[in-house]
Amino acid sequence: MTDQDTLSVNTIRGLCMDAIQQAESGHPGTPMGIAPVAYTLWQRFLRFDPQDPVWPNRDRFVLSEGHASALLWSLLHLSGVRAVDADYEVLGRPAVSLDDLRAFRQLDSRCPGHPEYRWTSGVETTTGPLGQGVATSVGMALAGRWLADRYNRDGFDLFDFDVYALAGDGCMMEGISSEAASAAGHQGLANLCWIYDSNRVTIEGHTDITFTEDVAARFLAYGWNVTTVADANDLDAVARALHTFRAETERPTLVVVHSHIGYGSPVEDSPRAHGTPFGEEGVRSTKRFLGLPPDERFHVPEAVREDFARGIGARGERLRTAWEERFEAYRRDWPAEADEITRMQRRELPEDWEAALPQFPPDPKGLASRDSSGRVLNALAERVPWLLGGSADLSPSTKTRLTFDGAGDLEPDEPGGRNLHLGVREHASAAIANGMALTKLRPYWSGFLIFSDYAKGAIRLSALMEIPVVHIFTHDSIGVGEDGPTHQPVEQLAGLRAMPGLLVFRPADAGEVVETWRAVAALRHEPAALVLSRQALPTLDRSVLASASGTARGAYVLADAPDGAPQVLLLATGSEVSLALSAREELAAEGIAARVVSMPCWELFDRQPREYREAVLPPGVTARVGVEQASTFGWDRYVGDRGAVVGMHTYGASAPLKKLITKFGFTPERVAQVARDVLAGREQPRSAA
Amino acid sequence: MTDQDTLSVNTIRGLCMDAIQQAESGHPGTPMGIAPVAYTLWQRFLRFDPQDPVWPNRDRFVLSEGHASALLWSLLHLSGVRAVDADYEVLGRPAVSLDDLRAFRQLDSRCPGHPEYRWTSGVETTTGPLGQGVATSVGMALAGRWLADRYNRDGFDLFDFDVYALAGDGCMMEGISSEAASAAGHQGLANLCWIYDSNRVTIEGHTDITFTEDVAARFLAYGWNVTTVADANDLDAVARALHTFRAETERPTLVVVHSHIGYGSPVEDSPRAHGTPFGEEGVRSTKRFLGLPPDERFHVPEAVREDFARGIGARGERLRTAWEERFEAYRRDWPAEADEITRMQRRELPEDWEAALPQFPPDPKGLASRDSSGRVLNALAERVPWLLGGSADLSPSTKTRLTFDGAGDLEPDEPGGRNLHLGVREHASAAIANGMALTKLRPYWSGFLIFSDYAKGAIRLSALMEIPVVHIFTHDSIGVGEDGPTHQPVEQLAGLRAMPGLLVFRPADAGEVVETWRAVAALRHEPAALVLSRQALPTLDRSVLASASGTARGAYVLADAPDGAPQVLLLATGSEVSLALSAREELAAEGIAARVVSMPCWELFDRQPREYREAVLPPGVTARVGVEQASTFGWDRYVGDRGAVVGMHTYGASAPLKKLITKFGFTPERVAQVARDVLAGREQPRSAA
Repeated sequence: MTDQDTLSVNTIRGLCMDAIQQAESGHPGTPMGIAPVAYTLWQRFLRFDPQDPVWPNRDRFVLSEGHASALLWSLLHLSGVRAVDADYEVLGRPAVSLDDLRAFRQLDSRCPGHPEYRWTSGVETTTGPLGQGVATSVGMALAGRWLADRYNRDGFDLFDFDVYALAGDGCMMEGISSEAASAAGHQGLANLCWIYDSNRVTIEGHTDITFTEDVAARFLAYGWNVTTVADANDLDAVARALHTFRAETERPTLVVVHSHIGYGSPVEDSPRAHGTPFGEEGVRSTKRFLGLPPDERFHVPEAVREDFARGIGARGERLRTAWEERFEAYRRDWPAEADEITRMQRRELPEDWEAALPQFPPDPKGLASRDSSGRVLNALAERVPWLLGGSADLSPSTKTRLTFDGAGDLEPDEPGGRNLHLGVREHASAAIANGMALTKLRPYWSGFLIFSDYAKGAIRLSALMEIPVVHIFTHDSIGVGEDGPTHQPVEQLAGLRAMPGLLVFRPADAGEVVETWRAVAALRHEPAALVLSRQALPTLDRSVLASASGTARGAYVLADAPDGAPQVLLLATGSEVSLALSAREELAAEGIAARVVSMPCWELFDRQPREYREAVLPPGVTARVGVEQASTFGWDRYVGDRGAVVGMHTYGASAPLKKLITKFGFTPERVAQVARDVLAGREQPRSAA
Repeated sequence: MTDQDTLSVNTIRGLCMDAIQQAESGHPGTPMGIAPVAYTLWQRFLRFDPQDPVWPNRDRFVLSEGHASALLWSLLHLSGVRAVDADYEVLGRPAVSLDDLRAFRQLDSRCPGHPEYRWTSGVETTTGPLGQGVATSVGMALAGRWLADRYNRDGFDLFDFDVYALAGDGCMMEGISSEAASAAGHQGLANLCWIYDSNRVTIEGHTDITFTEDVAARFLAYGWNVTTVADANDLDAVARALHTFRAETERPTLVVVHSHIGYGSPVEDSPRAHGTPFGEEGVRSTKRFLGLPPDERFHVPEAVREDFARGIGARGERLRTAWEERFEAYRRDWPAEADEITRMQRRELPEDWEAALPQFPPDPKGLASRDSSGRVLNALAERVPWLLGGSADLSPSTKTRLTFDGAGDLEPDEPGGRNLHLGVREHASAAIANGMALTKLRPYWSGFLIFSDYAKGAIRLSALMEIPVVHIFTHDSIGVGEDGPTHQPVEQLAGLRAMPGLLVFRPADAGEVVETWRAVAALRHEPAALVLSRQALPTLDRSVLASASGTARGAYVLADAPDGAPQVLLLATGSEVSLALSAREELAAEGIAARVVSMPCWELFDRQPREYREAVLPPGVTARVGVEQASTFGWDRYVGDRGAVVGMHTYGASAPLKKLITKFGFTPERVAQVARDVLAGREQPRSAA
């Protein structure tokens, strides 16, 4: 460790302490302990150009222990990383100025409490919820290997980036990281390196009180390469471990680094170092210990900036500019492939992608929306090579397998395959999809809607990060039938709809499925959840009903009252739209004029201008019935004070679908009766009580 | 393997095949493969009396691979397990008759698609969502050891039961099982045995395509005892492995059993065996292979019933009656302890528990609801010895630590401790709490509200099973402050409220916290979620405001218009109730009469008679404003067509709380302005659009 190394490492520590002390809030312990490791990685290994933080072949650095954000802000500042705008254009200003650091954890600062993707450039993924970063890194590494397999050519190693994730004890305890580590081991992701910051201290105390497993042995069992660094302050040992990673060609690598939380501070090795500023005097005494001027704040010697410029700065610029030259040559030899790469980086699709969308003729028998979705997905994926994904061991049921020639399995011996076997690991599946999306692929993953619960943490992050992941959920209601209440979603739709930034689609038939995919494929900065049926749904005859293109507006008048003046509105989604149409006929036979509104995507409908919304749901028509095989929670917004909802108030039951439909009242007769009741002003129960 | 063993095992297999074929739905593969193991366990080891399936010291059998329910139904039928009612009283009728088996997966059958607790006696926990069963079994084993430590006395080994869980490849892949296994290894639960049915086949194919880790090595890393059975059909080898478990005194045991999915069927070792009936001809050919009469359905030779009666039946009855005699003697020597055990089994509390509840004087500064809840919890737990729990590494923040003398840590060297260190393992934490509740303890666990997402699967099971777990969630809004949007819940409240059977409480002050705990402690068959603030909340002066006892009705008029005739209703929960009170004063100064309704528990309010609900929310007063620092999703039910909601439409931000309150509009001025707008009929946006 040279004097310069010492000065640079301790300058990082000083910035972290100062930022946290200034904010009187934050997590100083981790940055103090792990700064030398991060410094070594950034300065000696990371192939990252601060001048172009979105260069496609950059190594990725994921701070999975996101509470150590001050460490990342300090690194971004010292290496002079530039800002990018929301469309990934590099800007002149720095990602993190010294003033930003001074405003750590303050409103609108570029240095928030945890790293936030798309808010501060250089942040590869939003972290904080433990385990998410490491799991997401697996998706990045899979994507990197996939890009290499698809696009690299003799003499053109366009993609060979590595993915590093820095994780703490908490990350290692979360189930999502176990799932992801098992998947990464199976995939043999030699481009993936997790650095386990083992300081053996968590919020409740020493890990002795709850976490006494042998983590290294566990990762060996997953098929990982494991190496250990006895002292985080030993930069050469850290470098040796990272060289071991870079030399490994068949397995992901875990570097176990023994560190000291709050190193150098009065609370070193104590849980108090985790989430509490050291206090003015604590900061001063720590600075003295580290040989920093105790009374200077946000102190950055020019030699430290120069150090970073010589290290990561010079290496990154050299590699990035060489890559750009290589890419220009590649474009001459491989123009179509180069065009794909460019489109992908901009989150655009091939010109003619919409031409791939199939059509479905009217068919009273119809097909399940999982089936029609599978056909649309296959057609789209054949046209969009970087649309790929997999299932949490349910592809035969979710129908998401790509079956066209050359789709293949994405496996260690076929890294360019298009079908991922994600295993019974829903949470990691969603996080892996996030990682692939962050690498600019267009990923999807699938499972049963009920198991969206297991993946909730990662679904939320896709929405918070505004990345276009497609979460595909089938078996979307009591339509599951005999598997019973453990497998029948009830409240999941409401939970997903309540999530800001997630578009939830529940299409009514194959026509709406096509329009759903048309809307979803075009998304650049939003994730979507597709909620699809297990059972067959009639393909509606659009020559007598409205076009399915209304899907793009979230809700539309599917079948109107004869004179456009309905007495009652029947609002439905998915499998219940046909039910509403039947009820409408029953009411028509009695001379009651009902309008059926299909509402495949509430979020898109809520974004429409008031005129459109009121044209679909006329304020004057207060007799309204919502119909959905799901919790009624959230429906009041559309059915209003005088309306009613035919929905679920309890869990489901194990029985054939037809029996369940009768038991829970999803029949045309019942819907029509509720419509009559509403018209007559008879109160309908809104809740389970 | 005797001829009788063979006949009994194959009779089980025949019943499973017949039930599934009759239903034309179900999962035959697993029962065919693992039947000999289940048979050996039940016949030679399980200390379970079919005559009294709720005997407190019975060994627990958890079918974590719940899709193999036909196996459990067959075992319950053949061993003659009796039904119990919802209050755990043993009934005369069998839990599972042959007619029930014939009605497998039909409406109202005692043999649903997956095992459902409280629906079929002998089911120790609801399973089906993979990984939940094994994780829950950890809670049962912890509870068993806790009971032994607390109640056993010299000469009175009242509690020494073992917990067995049968798990498949899917269970082993789920993150929740990794979390639970790590926790169980740390706790050294020698009374816990997981049997891993390793058939290496999942829905998408052979586990080679995604699950190639060394499971045995992984469990050794967790600190488990691991043993292997090479052939599931080798009953003696199975028995040797289970003897190994019973001889182990310091570690949980994993028995890895190599089995063949769909054993004996035409689809043996194929994914097709998993979830598809074999077909009439497939069943016949399999029966021929097994030496069963191919054309007889639901065939049970009398010798098989006798076999079960001699095995599990005789052993169970002997052990249970001996235990009852022992317990009667114990009651004479240790009457107070015996009384506790009896109350616990009935889910009752000590007589005088309510006297323990503290009171909080009015205090404008007040305290965080996490703090007041911690004080109430401590007071209650001191009075109710079997109220215990822990935190997912957040007890210093969630304030759930029990601090009175003797509370102690629940650790291997102090198995009767009251404070569990659950580690950063939210999903397993909730499942472990479920397991403790299923063992009739009164458990709680705590974490930040945002991380309820991670535990969703297990929270849902507590509601589906109707068990009184207390899920304690603090840091309940943007009140989290600087940690930012990754840690600020927005949509979690809506998601929990949408869950049938879960009572969600968000108390407004210490007074409501006390009343919340009064309601929650008395629950016998319902779980509750407590949603508590990080920041201080004023303790309201109930001498000028209504009593907090209104909490028991879910919502109540806290402060009314002077003449009881409000122009506008301000509805709020938790930290926003005081905000509503301030807005009310501001409006009063302008001569606008506002009523403040505190709504700590929507579910309880919805259960009130219409008269009460309309007294609180008069239908004639349509000017209403809901105020809650959470997604507005679900509020329309209460604010109605002409109302408005001051809530969250986006994710939060990283900044000090005061800045966030202004940024997101949670000020008295804004609430008062929205109230004026509503009174004036100006439309308010309901969604993010």
